[in-house]
Amino acid sequence: MARYFEDTDVGDVYELDGRYDVTKAEVKEFAENYDPQPFHLDEAAAEDSIFGSLAASGWHTASMCMRLLVDDFLEPETSMGARGVDELRWIQPVYPGDTLRVEVEILDKRISESRPEMGHIRTKLTGYNQHDDAVIEWKAKGMHRRREADE
Amino acid sequence: MARYFEDTDVGDVYELDGRYDVTKAEVKEFAENYDPQPFHLDEAAAEDSIFGSLAASGWHTASMCMRLLVDDFLEPETSMGARGVDELRWIQPVYPGDTLRVEVEILDKRISESRPEMGHIRTKLTGYNQHDDAVIEWKAKGMHRRREADE
Repeated sequence: MARYFEDTDVGDVYELDGRYDVTKAEVKEFAENYDPQPFHLDEAAAEDSIFGSLAASGWHTASMCMRLLVDDFLEPETSMGARGVDELRWIQPVYPGDTLRVEVEILDKRISESRPEMGHIRTKLTGYNQHDDAVIEWKAKGMHRRREADE
Repeated sequence: MARYFEDTDVGDVYELDGRYDVTKAEVKEFAENYDPQPFHLDEAAAEDSIFGSLAASGWHTASMCMRLLVDDFLEPETSMGARGVDELRWIQPVYPGDTLRVEVEILDKRISESRPEMGHIRTKLTGYNQHDDAVIEWKAKGMHRRREADE
C-alpha cells in the first residue's frame, strides 16, 4: 500500500530495514567519478589525512543512504521529489567494510498552497554504521502525493 | 601553486573553467545505483512526473558539481574535507544533454581554534546549465590548510 501524505504523523520515526555494505571497490569508483581527492582514492594518502584511512566521499555516503530511503521509504506512487536539504552533516567518516542503515523522523508537514494534490513533508534522515554511530544526517523537504488526489 | 586558507578573500567569486556533459547513460546508471525512482530511470514515467522528462537525481547533480569543484578549486595539498552543507537546493531539473558549470563564492572564513594548522572557509557553490540557469546551490563548510603550517 502506497504511503500518502496523510499516512505519516509528525514525530513518527521509521527505522528502515535495509542495510548497505560499503565496499572498497565502490568507494574508489565513486571517488574516481565524482570526488577524486586523495583521501577517497588512495590508502597511503588517506592515512596522512584527517580521516586516518580510506574513507567514502561524503556525497557517496549521502547517495548510499538515499538508496536505502528509496528502497524502504519513498514510493513511486506518492513520492514527488524534493526541493532541497538543510543541515547536511558528515558526522563521522564512512570506511570500506562499514554497513549503513537509516532512520527517518517526520519533522513537520503541510498541504501545498499552489498544488493541492500534494503536500510538503520535512524529514530528518540519520545514517548509522554497524556500531550505531551516526555518520550522516540531513533535513529534507520532500513532496508527497495526497490520498484524496487519487480518490 | 596550492591555494591555502590565506589565499582567498571573503567576497571572491571563482568561475570555474570545467564543464560536465550530462549523458542519459550516466543519469540512468547513477539512478540505478543510488536513486531508483521512476523519474530518474524511465522516460515514460518521467513524462508524467513533476520533471516532465528524464531528470538526473539531485544527488547525481550534486556529485557532478563536486567533480567540477575538485578538478578546478579544491587542491590535494590544502583541502582537508568538509563538515557539511547547508541550504542545498535543487532549483531546476538537470536533463541528459545539459552541460554544467559551477561558481564558488567565499562567504566567510576563520582560523580553527582546535587545530591552528587549518582554517574553516564557508563557500556558496552554484551550478548552472548551458542556458545560465542556476540548477543547484549549496553552502559548504570546508577545512583548508594554512600556509604557515607548511613554512
